[in-house]
Amino acid sequence: MINYPNGKKNSNEKTINYANRGMSLEDDLNDTNKYYLQNDIAAVYKKPTPITIVNVEYKSRSTAKITEAYFQVPSTTDYNGVYKGKYLDFEAKETKSKTSLVLSIFHPHQLQHLERVVRYGGIGFTIIRFKEYDETYFVKAEVLLNKINSSDKKSIPYNWFKENGILIPYRYQKKVDYLKVIDEYILEEQQ
Amino acid sequence: MINYPNGKKNSNEKTINYANRGMSLEDDLNDTNKYYLQNDIAAVYKKPTPITIVNVEYKSRSTAKITEAYFQVPSTTDYNGVYKGKYLDFEAKETKSKTSLVLSIFHPHQLQHLERVVRYGGIGFTIIRFKEYDETYFVKAEVLLNKINSSDKKSIPYNWFKENGILIPYRYQKKVDYLKVIDEYILEEQQ
Repeated sequence: MINYPNGKKNSNEKTINYANRGMSLEDDLNDTNKYYLQNDIAAVYKKPTPITIVNVEYKSRSTAKITEAYFQVPSTTDYNGVYKGKYLDFEAKETKSKTSLVLSIFHPHQLQHLERVVRYGGIGFTIIRFKEYDETYFVKAEVLLNKINSSDKKSIPYNWFKENGILIPYRYQKKVDYLKVIDEYILEEQQ
Repeated sequence: MINYPNGKKNSNEKTINYANRGMSLEDDLNDTNKYYLQNDIAAVYKKPTPITIVNVEYKSRSTAKITEAYFQVPSTTDYNGVYKGKYLDFEAKETKSKTSLVLSIFHPHQLQHLERVVRYGGIGFTIIRFKEYDETYFVKAEVLLNKINSSDKKSIPYNWFKENGILIPYRYQKKVDYLKVIDEYILEEQQ
């Protein structure tokens, strides 16, 4: 960072105070899931990127080098796992937009998968980050799917997330502490 | 197949009658999971093979070709999903041995993961196929882990699987119908 000779600080500095700034949602979720794992709380993993392998070179018995492969369209969401006996399944997306989330950010298969997860008794949800506001929302799959199915718009306004999502506060270790929200759902269910 | 001129059949032929013959356990599980999905029963998927991507060529906006990548050691099991509100998680292995299953077939991370799954209230298990007998066994993770932890042997005898596993009969569509076994566990739990 540049220190200005007049002693004044760069006008962008206030945004630098957000500890989260610059980290991707994926990185934050990886850190959070690692925290859950290391503290023996839950086992949630990001699925590997699905690829089609076309060619592999075997240089020796132990090393294999993939020399031709292509990305596949994912047929499910990126994250799933187990917590307090519950099946968790979610998709995480971030947007630079200040006004809305474009729905084409989801693959149709992912939405179909979330719908199944809910039907089969799992907890399906999405985690949406509006990067410009540094705000991360938890939205239950049922709520999001209902919104998508009830309109033919190609995006959902930012304000909808403010009203229908649950803001996940940024924490030092549990950067996106989504299990806190899950805990509330489990409590509600038990009552 | 060779037809012997004396009219007698190849002594190996009796095994060829098994419809399953020649299909890998992975193929059979993929077919089974597809059946479960298409018949709206459960959503269980094989996780993509984890790889480290080193280089990608972008020929055009829509096509990306991975030109250098390497296989990673998996940190979890291969299969997980949701059924009747339960989190399912399992590893599938097949062996050509007629006498035992070598334990090095499991990565230490996979066993550790199965132990966590059970601890967090999910249903963890393994599906083991002895190819030479065309027999596929369902073994609960708790039972297998207990066996592994209680001995320092590097393999588990075939007979142990006959005694402690549950034989999954081969069916035309549900080739490895493991949910039938899960149903019994769920019933037991409810009683």
